[in-house]
Amino acid sequence: MDFAVSERLQTILDMIQEFIEKELIPREAEFAAKDFSELVPELEDLRNMVRGMELWAPLHPKEYGGMGLSLMEYAVVAEALGYTPFGLYVFGCQAPDAGNIEILHKFGNEEQKEKYLRPLIEGKIRSCFSMTEVEVCGSNPIWLLTTAVKDGDDYVINGNKWYTSSADGSEFAIVMAETNPENESPHLKASMIIVPLDTPGMDIVRNVSVMGHVGDGWVSHAEVRYNNCRVPRSNLLGNEGQGFVLAQERLGPGRIHHCMRWIGIMNRCYDEMCTYVLQRRRTPTEVLADSDIIKAYIADSAADIMASRLMVLSTAWTIDNVGVKDAMKEISIIKYFVANAMQRVVDRALQCHGGLGMTDDTPIAYYWRGERASRIYDGADEVHKLSVARRVLRDYKKGKKVRFGM
Amino acid sequence: MDFAVSERLQTILDMIQEFIEKELIPREAEFAAKDFSELVPELEDLRNMVRGMELWAPLHPKEYGGMGLSLMEYAVVAEALGYTPFGLYVFGCQAPDAGNIEILHKFGNEEQKEKYLRPLIEGKIRSCFSMTEVEVCGSNPIWLLTTAVKDGDDYVINGNKWYTSSADGSEFAIVMAETNPENESPHLKASMIIVPLDTPGMDIVRNVSVMGHVGDGWVSHAEVRYNNCRVPRSNLLGNEGQGFVLAQERLGPGRIHHCMRWIGIMNRCYDEMCTYVLQRRRTPTEVLADSDIIKAYIADSAADIMASRLMVLSTAWTIDNVGVKDAMKEISIIKYFVANAMQRVVDRALQCHGGLGMTDDTPIAYYWRGERASRIYDGADEVHKLSVARRVLRDYKKGKKVRFGM
Amino acid sequence: MDFAVSERLQTILDMIQEFIEKELIPREAEFAAKDFSELVPELEDLRNMVRGMELWAPLHPKEYGGMGLSLMEYAVVAEALGYTPFGLYVFGCQAPDAGNIEILHKFGNEEQKEKYLRPLIEGKIRSCFSMTEVEVCGSNPIWLLTTAVKDGDDYVINGNKWYTSSADGSEFAIVMAETNPENESPHLKASMIIVPLDTPGMDIVRNVSVMGHVGDGWVSHAEVRYNNCRVPRSNLLGNEGQGFVLAQERLGPGRIHHCMRWIGIMNRCYDEMCTYVLQRRRTPTEVLADSDIIKAYIADSAADIMASRLMVLSTAWTIDNVGVKDAMKEISIIKYFVANAMQRVVDRALQCHGGLGMTDDTPIAYYWRGERASRIYDGADEVHKLSVARRVLRDYKKGKKVRFGM
Amino acid sequence: MDFAVSERLQTILDMIQEFIEKELIPREAEFAAKDFSELVPELEDLRNMVRGMELWAPLHPKEYGGMGLSLMEYAVVAEALGYTPFGLYVFGCQAPDAGNIEILHKFGNEEQKEKYLRPLIEGKIRSCFSMTEVEVCGSNPIWLLTTAVKDGDDYVINGNKWYTSSADGSEFAIVMAETNPENESPHLKASMIIVPLDTPGMDIVRNVSVMGHVGDGWVSHAEVRYNNCRVPRSNLLGNEGQGFVLAQERLGPGRIHHCMRWIGIMNRCYDEMCTYVLQRRRTPTEVLADSDIIKAYIADSAADIMASRLMVLSTAWTIDNVGVKDAMKEISIIKYFVANAMQRVVDRALQCHGGLGMTDDTPIAYYWRGERASRIYDGADEVHKLSVARRVLRDYKKGKKVRFGM
Repeated sequence: MDFAVSERLQTILDMIQEFIEKELIPREAEFAAKDFSELVPELEDLRNMVRGMELWAPLHPKEYGGMGLSLMEYAVVAEALGYTPFGLYVFGCQAPDAGNIEILHKFGNEEQKEKYLRPLIEGKIRSCFSMTEVEVCGSNPIWLLTTAVKDGDDYVINGNKWYTSSADGSEFAIVMAETNPENESPHLKASMIIVPLDTPGMDIVRNVSVMGHVGDGWVSHAEVRYNNCRVPRSNLLGNEGQGFVLAQERLGPGRIHHCMRWIGIMNRCYDEMCTYVLQRRRTPTEVLADSDIIKAYIADSAADIMASRLMVLSTAWTIDNVGVKDAMKEISIIKYFVANAMQRVVDRALQCHGGLGMTDDTPIAYYWRGERASRIYDGADEVHKLSVARRVLRDYKKGKKVRFGM
Repeated sequence: MDFAVSERLQTILDMIQEFIEKELIPREAEFAAKDFSELVPELEDLRNMVRGMELWAPLHPKEYGGMGLSLMEYAVVAEALGYTPFGLYVFGCQAPDAGNIEILHKFGNEEQKEKYLRPLIEGKIRSCFSMTEVEVCGSNPIWLLTTAVKDGDDYVINGNKWYTSSADGSEFAIVMAETNPENESPHLKASMIIVPLDTPGMDIVRNVSVMGHVGDGWVSHAEVRYNNCRVPRSNLLGNEGQGFVLAQERLGPGRIHHCMRWIGIMNRCYDEMCTYVLQRRRTPTEVLADSDIIKAYIADSAADIMASRLMVLSTAWTIDNVGVKDAMKEISIIKYFVANAMQRVVDRALQCHGGLGMTDDTPIAYYWRGERASRIYDGADEVHKLSVARRVLRDYKKGKKVRFGM
Repeated sequence: MDFAVSERLQTILDMIQEFIEKELIPREAEFAAKDFSELVPELEDLRNMVRGMELWAPLHPKEYGGMGLSLMEYAVVAEALGYTPFGLYVFGCQAPDAGNIEILHKFGNEEQKEKYLRPLIEGKIRSCFSMTEVEVCGSNPIWLLTTAVKDGDDYVINGNKWYTSSADGSEFAIVMAETNPENESPHLKASMIIVPLDTPGMDIVRNVSVMGHVGDGWVSHAEVRYNNCRVPRSNLLGNEGQGFVLAQERLGPGRIHHCMRWIGIMNRCYDEMCTYVLQRRRTPTEVLADSDIIKAYIADSAADIMASRLMVLSTAWTIDNVGVKDAMKEISIIKYFVANAMQRVVDRALQCHGGLGMTDDTPIAYYWRGERASRIYDGADEVHKLSVARRVLRDYKKGKKVRFGM
Repeated sequence: MDFAVSERLQTILDMIQEFIEKELIPREAEFAAKDFSELVPELEDLRNMVRGMELWAPLHPKEYGGMGLSLMEYAVVAEALGYTPFGLYVFGCQAPDAGNIEILHKFGNEEQKEKYLRPLIEGKIRSCFSMTEVEVCGSNPIWLLTTAVKDGDDYVINGNKWYTSSADGSEFAIVMAETNPENESPHLKASMIIVPLDTPGMDIVRNVSVMGHVGDGWVSHAEVRYNNCRVPRSNLLGNEGQGFVLAQERLGPGRIHHCMRWIGIMNRCYDEMCTYVLQRRRTPTEVLADSDIIKAYIADSAADIMASRLMVLSTAWTIDNVGVKDAMKEISIIKYFVANAMQRVVDRALQCHGGLGMTDDTPIAYYWRGERASRIYDGADEVHKLSVARRVLRDYKKGKKVRFGM
């Protein structure tokens, strides 16, 4: 075992952190106050600076203009980018595009890759992922009401989706729909289909108001109605009925990407907390940091971050070196452990700021309301816990003790 | 001991609940989406209905048009009103006016009462309370930088305040300022002074953006600058140097009022949770309520609410029957216990709603972000815990064991 | 509502507390170090003192020599008795006899009452309750492997039980066994039968070693084998098949009796903690109580005790005034809430004592190991939580909102 | 970074685990029931088997007959040994000897090494560490009342210690005493002195009853009185006044050794839990593992163990590769994080076992009561939290952000 970071990666990290410090942190208040559409030109300038530094799209394949880092290298980079709300966006590795890129790269045909993957990696267009449905539980991915029926050379799609995040302004959606209801296996009934946003019958009903904000552009969560929405069958991704398999391919790494970003958020709140309590006086001669209760909050937060970080890195290492299949249990564990650790750290940082913590003068209140979703999206806490236990118990049933490191 | 509710109080409760069910719940979405200023006419109509039912201002003195309930009777009423975001406002017992009414009633002279108290209780004007300062810690109420210097028949006030909630549109503020810096006792340096909002030198710098919203009117938190703001000395409330004493008078009941309202919020989230999990299917044949983990959330929430409610009622009873001085420890205990219990209940309700819980299609997300402040305002958790322990240890030091019920 | 204690009850309480302070606390170390059998004579002397003060058997019916307090009055008394490990025993209201007394009083015939109930209430004999089985889950009371087959005028009992607490030295056991396997209702298959300990075929296999101690006499937990154990059919309690009904009658109050006692344990640990931290120096000039973290422990414990106590009293009031059926949800809530609150208070008290807390020089370590069982016996946390949720959801399904106090 | 275990280490691990499975687990019940003195011969046989396998004293230096593993290699071995209560003892790396060995190896002179270190590593004698005092707080290591006054060629020691664990039957104690009260630095007043147990004036007052057991031999915690206890000045370890420095050297690794062992305990309880819930039926057709609440316990425990293990390994790596000074913060973090994680895992395992969990038929109850001390010994939770926060805040004060991995 070896816990050291390579020199090359450290250099990349240093560059990223300097950029964030100089270019992104000072713009945070402005980013928070304006609509996304107003910010696009400025964000594009920043992206060009990143391209110039050759740090664009660190996770994505080199052949399409990315840096092609391993997942574990990317973990360290993503932590740094997660430190500020627009970090991942400015470096071209933001959700939901990152996940769509993975699918297109692994399962898209050459035509799809040229048409959708290349401009997506290059940051020329945006995309969205349309899976979650209004009427049925997102925690049960094999149960879909949206259908895609073959009609000549087309699919005709009908259904209601929401949490199609960033649909507003996207070039295309990847839509999950039932194409093979007759298939006996519940895991082989659905497919993924590319649907350009301007296709007739694909309508954004509303950007759903989430935690008090309707949002716009990349920062929005659309409710979408598919009403006899017709696309050519060549828009199918992979094979018919493979939708669930692709979703697993997308969501596994997607979850760990979130976890990496959350480490950045935790580090940010930790920084804000430690910095603030040293300067905020509670009496003319004492600062908040003189309180033992505040000190205990810092210590508990340090433990939460240290634990979370090592778990994420170790899981990324397993994916890189053993394979994603052998990391499924770990992916689920970090999904709920890190999301909850983050909530605790954000909570403590907010509490230490007192009334200021409730305001938008720091990014903490933003994380408090926005990242509450982390315990829900891509599999709620409860779903992942049951999934972990099922895997563990399956092994114990076979007499295989899956204790840790033994 | 007797845990029964009187028949008279039950009748009042039934009327209130019917009104809330019929008139307020259906308007919640509209209330959440519009600015306060847009809502004023509609809110006034609703207030008139309440006046017509003779349920106006349940807590406030009869002589000024209120119902004059005891604190324990009011506790039960306030729970019911807290069930919907505008409940207290529509029934004329909202913060910060309720606290100002208490002070004016107890410490105002006749002129002040006629000019400020009467129209305030009648709901004709609004007011605000300007104590929390920008530069110093709200948790230390005896440390103020704002000064009120006597100059002839006037006070000249200078200082920076924030969290002067509802200042926007208020008729007057009650301002806490240092008038007697030379007094040896730190508790006798400050006074409370009535400052009409239109006084020159009193400027609302901004409505602070709190949890993503700047807000307006009653729903806002102003930063205020007092810049040589001059008011007549007759605007003094009570005696000079008595500001801290009045603040204690105001904050004690203020805290328990919050706790009562939080019971209503907990009940609301509990209702939303129990109702939703019974209808939301997780598979074609099962609803969320079939999950044992969800069931445990409901049971834990039931315990949280039952505990909180009994503690608040018992504290109100002590204030009514023994006196507020003997209830100081209990007031502090419920302040942190109930605020944290509420946060747990809101959290579980949100989690049970999945993605829907993050949206503004239910009131849960509103409580998640807005009521995070409950663990901060009117004394942060940490401040009240230390205060409780100090009282307890003071007794033990004297050899007096202050265990419970023994 | 009224939270005051009557003068009469206060007088009783004062007498009890004085007795405990003078006679029981000083003997605690001796009680902890000796076997139960060695203690019997001294305990009998103490019991005689209690009889002399006319405080014997406070909960039990007057006609048999008890004080006949209401359940809510008894709640206040039991708190006081729970303050020291042998309190309930010395005042003649210890488990498992108290529960057996309730059953015998409600369901025993005159002969059974004279033979078993009277000497039991008088404290002349001890008894045990033999329900929990070795092979099947105690959390599922309707599933029993022990059978009682009619043979002439007798029942012939076969089966394996454990956690037949206090069997060692008991005069008789009340045994739960399946008598009517053919009955369609799972709740009508079992009966309760009185089995004198000297009946052939009833063998104590061992006193099970629990938390490091085998124990003896009243302080023991027997594993019992029934091997063709034959008793006359007149030993049946109530009607055949009524065992489950009787068990409910026994366990409902049994649970609340435990909760009352736990309040006493919490008060005791709270006293020990507050007293110790004021005297234990952490530096030559500071005591542990000067630490804010310790202060927070005290405040959190105060909240835990205040909440627990009000919930238990309110539940006792409901049983007394509305009936046990309407209190079933509350009984379950307090069972898990108070047991967990107690564990937290014991944990904090132990932690504040440092190394001393691990020793048997205070009673805290005893509570830490012994009362871990509180979250298991008479229905584990998980079982009661599911039961509460089922009751709640049943009401919501009918459209009845069972929120608190509204 | 690399999370793989070397082939060589894996071979060692496999041998150890096979030995534990075959030779130690089957003897656990016997070990638990007998006094230590009765077990000595059998334990010596087992130790000889370990010596024969060349797995003796894995942590200790090769030159004295140990295996000389690095700390990170040892971490993996110690996890395996911690899986059963006597694992570390049988492999010759038990506390308190392991810590004494470190000190003697680093600071002993040649004569001390031959006389004490060699037979200690060889397992021919046992030793104890006499630092904690009765009257003053163990959490304040620079405050000692025990004195060692020079008198000719001797030290004359006076004072009261307790928690001198394993003193009973030891060959010698390392005693911490104040030798230089005049030194200005509080960290340079005390020294460590070797005191043979048979020295006149060194008296074991009692083996303190801890969690219900007085214990004996290696399994005991002595209270010791030093009454004009006279030893030659050549028994001084290192230099005079260096006691605190040596204590730090001893306690740093000592803490991480505990953490490693705790991983073994967690793995053990996890195994017991997963195995038991799969076989224990709650109904004729369902096992406990069918409950979602139980599943959540397993998932939470998996996360606790995964987090703890990675934190311990990473800290061991830092000590090996960067130095113990740079790992002080991490050592403190794991001390409280892992101790608390262990308590949670033991608690869940006990709960899943129901009544059985309270008995001594599994090792869980032993861990529940014995390992409660883990949050106290070698620095209580609160002490380490404050220490972490002080280190963190010291860096932030200098403008150095010590967030994780960035």
